[in-house]
Amino acid sequence: MHYTCCMPKTPVAVLGATGAVGQRFIQLLADHPWFEVAELAASDRSAGKPYGEACTWRLPGSVPPSVSERVVSSLDSPFRSPLLFSGLDSSVAGEAEAALAAKGHAVVTNSRNHRMDPDVPLLVPEINADHLAALEGQRRRTGGGYILTNPNCSVVGLVLALAPLHRAFGLESVVVVTLQALSGAGYPGVASLDIEDNVLPFIGGGEEEKIESEPQKILGGFAQGAFSPAPFPVSSSVHRVAVVDGHTMAIFVRLRTRATPAQASRVLADFRGEPQERRLPSAPRQPIHVLTEPDRPQPRRDRDREGGMAVSVGRIREDKVFDLRLEALVHNTIRGAAGAAILNAELLQARGLLP
Amino acid sequence: MHYTCCMPKTPVAVLGATGAVGQRFIQLLADHPWFEVAELAASDRSAGKPYGEACTWRLPGSVPPSVSERVVSSLDSPFRSPLLFSGLDSSVAGEAEAALAAKGHAVVTNSRNHRMDPDVPLLVPEINADHLAALEGQRRRTGGGYILTNPNCSVVGLVLALAPLHRAFGLESVVVVTLQALSGAGYPGVASLDIEDNVLPFIGGGEEEKIESEPQKILGGFAQGAFSPAPFPVSSSVHRVAVVDGHTMAIFVRLRTRATPAQASRVLADFRGEPQERRLPSAPRQPIHVLTEPDRPQPRRDRDREGGMAVSVGRIREDKVFDLRLEALVHNTIRGAAGAAILNAELLQARGLLP
Amino acid sequence: MHYTCCMPKTPVAVLGATGAVGQRFIQLLADHPWFEVAELAASDRSAGKPYGEACTWRLPGSVPPSVSERVVSSLDSPFRSPLLFSGLDSSVAGEAEAALAAKGHAVVTNSRNHRMDPDVPLLVPEINADHLAALEGQRRRTGGGYILTNPNCSVVGLVLALAPLHRAFGLESVVVVTLQALSGAGYPGVASLDIEDNVLPFIGGGEEEKIESEPQKILGGFAQGAFSPAPFPVSSSVHRVAVVDGHTMAIFVRLRTRATPAQASRVLADFRGEPQERRLPSAPRQPIHVLTEPDRPQPRRDRDREGGMAVSVGRIREDKVFDLRLEALVHNTIRGAAGAAILNAELLQARGLLP
Amino acid sequence: MHYTCCMPKTPVAVLGATGAVGQRFIQLLADHPWFEVAELAASDRSAGKPYGEACTWRLPGSVPPSVSERVVSSLDSPFRSPLLFSGLDSSVAGEAEAALAAKGHAVVTNSRNHRMDPDVPLLVPEINADHLAALEGQRRRTGGGYILTNPNCSVVGLVLALAPLHRAFGLESVVVVTLQALSGAGYPGVASLDIEDNVLPFIGGGEEEKIESEPQKILGGFAQGAFSPAPFPVSSSVHRVAVVDGHTMAIFVRLRTRATPAQASRVLADFRGEPQERRLPSAPRQPIHVLTEPDRPQPRRDRDREGGMAVSVGRIREDKVFDLRLEALVHNTIRGAAGAAILNAELLQARGLLP
Repeated sequence: MHYTCCMPKTPVAVLGATGAVGQRFIQLLADHPWFEVAELAASDRSAGKPYGEACTWRLPGSVPPSVSERVVSSLDSPFRSPLLFSGLDSSVAGEAEAALAAKGHAVVTNSRNHRMDPDVPLLVPEINADHLAALEGQRRRTGGGYILTNPNCSVVGLVLALAPLHRAFGLESVVVVTLQALSGAGYPGVASLDIEDNVLPFIGGGEEEKIESEPQKILGGFAQGAFSPAPFPVSSSVHRVAVVDGHTMAIFVRLRTRATPAQASRVLADFRGEPQERRLPSAPRQPIHVLTEPDRPQPRRDRDREGGMAVSVGRIREDKVFDLRLEALVHNTIRGAAGAAILNAELLQARGLLP
Repeated sequence: MHYTCCMPKTPVAVLGATGAVGQRFIQLLADHPWFEVAELAASDRSAGKPYGEACTWRLPGSVPPSVSERVVSSLDSPFRSPLLFSGLDSSVAGEAEAALAAKGHAVVTNSRNHRMDPDVPLLVPEINADHLAALEGQRRRTGGGYILTNPNCSVVGLVLALAPLHRAFGLESVVVVTLQALSGAGYPGVASLDIEDNVLPFIGGGEEEKIESEPQKILGGFAQGAFSPAPFPVSSSVHRVAVVDGHTMAIFVRLRTRATPAQASRVLADFRGEPQERRLPSAPRQPIHVLTEPDRPQPRRDRDREGGMAVSVGRIREDKVFDLRLEALVHNTIRGAAGAAILNAELLQARGLLP
Repeated sequence: MHYTCCMPKTPVAVLGATGAVGQRFIQLLADHPWFEVAELAASDRSAGKPYGEACTWRLPGSVPPSVSERVVSSLDSPFRSPLLFSGLDSSVAGEAEAALAAKGHAVVTNSRNHRMDPDVPLLVPEINADHLAALEGQRRRTGGGYILTNPNCSVVGLVLALAPLHRAFGLESVVVVTLQALSGAGYPGVASLDIEDNVLPFIGGGEEEKIESEPQKILGGFAQGAFSPAPFPVSSSVHRVAVVDGHTMAIFVRLRTRATPAQASRVLADFRGEPQERRLPSAPRQPIHVLTEPDRPQPRRDRDREGGMAVSVGRIREDKVFDLRLEALVHNTIRGAAGAAILNAELLQARGLLP
Repeated sequence: MHYTCCMPKTPVAVLGATGAVGQRFIQLLADHPWFEVAELAASDRSAGKPYGEACTWRLPGSVPPSVSERVVSSLDSPFRSPLLFSGLDSSVAGEAEAALAAKGHAVVTNSRNHRMDPDVPLLVPEINADHLAALEGQRRRTGGGYILTNPNCSVVGLVLALAPLHRAFGLESVVVVTLQALSGAGYPGVASLDIEDNVLPFIGGGEEEKIESEPQKILGGFAQGAFSPAPFPVSSSVHRVAVVDGHTMAIFVRLRTRATPAQASRVLADFRGEPQERRLPSAPRQPIHVLTEPDRPQPRRDRDREGGMAVSVGRIREDKVFDLRLEALVHNTIRGAAGAAILNAELLQARGLLP
């Protein structure tokens, strides 16, 4: 199946369009070759206003002209688009997304609410595209609609760095310490007085719990209608630092089969998946950039590799307590949020799974 | 032995007086009850000038008036003071300190050069005051002078958090990930373009190697003229972050005897040592402050506890891969550098060990 | 009248005690020689709780033990203290302060609501202590209580730098561009995503209007029951920058009588007022520190001079469009807010004006 | 004259290729439609090495593959390219550029050395393209080569904001206060300890002098072989702030003919010049973006408009001391440095002025 310039674009809706993740959706979809933002929905406070007025745009530049005049609808209004991107706050996403799936929509969401549901894939398409089989169960229930989730922003970077190691050498245990960017907290998020000349050794909303449970689902299997999580334990300690975008992670791994840093480096650099094979529009050519300079990756200098869709890994070295340690970096609002959801939706369309 | 206001102060020299650590020495000694800055030495470039002119003061405020007019001497000139505080750059400290010890001085240094020497104590006086016995060997060699070192700035915070746990429960292995302040790199140190909106996942000068080898010497024994390092392995991953002062550390420990967070918290809060018993002027009343708020310690808000001489510990919790994990914070240029050396010298004087 | 250690302290209340300014009041009053915090009041949300529990302490360290257990009362409850320090939000300060003055209290406030009232002094005690005569009118109205205000945080620094020049040479016009600290916006104040790697060229709440109108009242006269503002125009342009504390200002002045930078420097350095004559506890020995290094004043290095109560001035030089230009720096939450109010109250007590 | 994909590109050399401005040249020229980087030159330390090895790349991402293997030559070696872009340090640029012009090259430089020379244009092509006539004098002297300069990074933004006002209403005097980005100081530039939680009210290298003298040359005339500077005085006060890229300026102007903010806004938004008429590759469609939100322009959100080549202006309002005040923002290393030089060279080529 080939997509060409002559094919009509799939109309999509963005839910939570005025929020931080919603703005990234709008930005990344502005010139998308397959999708066209046809509907915008947000809280009742914004409904009825043109997007350019309802939204205080906080990304660089201004609201894309193509959506600036589009009137924002409420979440309750019916949607024409088959595909809905959700950047809804977790306080409303749970029920709203389930209701929209029940109405037959493909809800591709960045929200955390349904990630661990027993028939909802937690998708990183380079890693566990086979988990899409779980949509079957949902579609039987709803008659066609479903929910598809992507992981927590840190987890996307973590599992992309772990997946090739797990496949090649087998993970036995993982420790990860994060230095997370401000944009991960949305807007207004972290008060400037809390982070200027400071570090916060804590992130609310169950951040450590997500980091310690989502990777096993992603790296586990799906068979006979059920997910079987990978069995290795993950321990984490999270920090907020004064960086706009880009989560940095120090990772320590114990492996079933020992591996040298050179061997690990090779499987990381060689890693490819279905998005690369299918050349999905948002897929990075190389999902993992292995950097060899001693002081990389760095958030400001590496977060935008391949449009923010590639994860950077560096400082792969032996470890006295574990087997290997390394640093990983992910653009938390692109590969770790809106870009992840868009890549998920591209895979759905490429496989013909959209309603 | 009691020190009262009527006792004459011990004259001291500060070596490397114009550098970052040297300036902290000057600041902390400005009103010291026992010591009086009588001599200042620096590189030949500064020698012969009044301190206020030779030094670009980079701490808040201005050069203390008491030393502003004092003329800086060169390192080669003879010193009258028995006690020399060294903030010399490691490129010159090695030979210079050895030469000055050979001339009979007590050289209390923050430099790394002699830390792992077989007869030089690596002192954290709350922890291993018994290591002062190693000075005997040096004094025999030199006829009276000696070198006394304090650890790397991160290590001071790390071992203060580890020592009570090691004593009570026995350390089996340690992983530590640091988020280190800018002042740890001296001046000019880190370029602003390297750290604004950024994190550096690397610190030169063998930072990780120091963190992985110094704790074992400190927490080990000294008997029959030799140090026997504690046997547990330490693994680290270090980062520079945009914080002026205060190194934050995420620590994971495996223990010989299991301990609950509450038990760990108790031994940390109760920890005291000889500086507290002797009420040394720079000794914190409580070396380790255990904070119970979920988002502490934080560098800007906790680094100055007890004048920067107390280490703060928080987020003590169970761990799925190790036994316990926790966050620690140390003021890297006070408790982690100049203040550490001054506390070491106070113990020397209190014990009557100054030449 | 001499204050000695044997005199009983004046009990005071702090209104808005849990807010950003309220916390500074608590901190600065913790060891005050004349005043003792006897009562704490805040919004109904906090009322009834111990302060240590009601308040999320955001200054360095922890809540002072002396007030930690004290129960917070509501604003409606009666106060025993004659002297009330108000850090109330301007949304409630207007009515609340008037009501408390009517009940006989001396309300010494940092809030903006009553600053321009026709019988309320806008006091900088080094400059316009004679304006205290305006309290007479209030006291007649209320039977004893009154409101005393201090200026906007930027204005305190600006007028202290301007007053000596105005007295000696006469101001004809003033332009001031500010680079203001985060703490000036209270908590949570500025979102970190708005200020990291950024500057905001705007401050809400009428910041420019205050800067352009308050100086004339302060530098004007009070006679026959009325204020007569000084006639020079002030124009401003304000910015928020990523600094914790300390407002920096670039000031341009046209003078009635020309003055050289050296002459201006002299009148600034020599400036003293009633707080210095009376040696009030919070009075800086020298209200204006004239710095001669080419790159000073700087917020982090100069804001804490004299406990944050001195204003620093530097770069005094000729100007091609105006007569002189200079840089000034004020600690916005000490000299520019809570410390200003406390100094005002000290003058009241020293003059015997407390109810 | 039309440039199409079939025309061969002009080979160019980048001098000072490993420095901060040199790296921007490399980045902006990587996919340039008219120019091709054929030669790289740098100090003797780098000469002889492949660029990817000689250069520590400090912009985001990595060295463009097209130049990574190219060997760096020394400044003394002969150049084949007719067009040389110079990002040389001012300590060497003066003589080196003159020598290269004498050899027949077009030296398009960002360095300050020759900006005020009597036959060297200080070009902002939207404003004073007619100053290119001054190249005639140089070419007569050298037999063909010449030097063409662009202004100081702040001045580019300032004069673009001033030029439309000057043409429409006549400038009588200007005051400008800058908040300048870190990248303006090159690398390593500002020490992080000097700028974290701080502002520097000073920039060395004669920054204020340049801001106060370059605009008059640019906005002045060139006739009968001589420049006649515009007569209005400019006064400035400069600051360094913790921003990666983007100089913010508060500007106050007195006009010969009064103008309302709306009138000023219109002439700014309507401003176009020869680069727009000729649709030069690096020309912004609209040189000045007039922003109407009350808190714009902001460096992080507005510096990249039109690839960093547009200047943003906002907060145009009346002034009590001057006539108008406004805020302007320029990307200091693109429109204010390398991008400015490239636009200058594009105009040379479009006019057929390259040797």
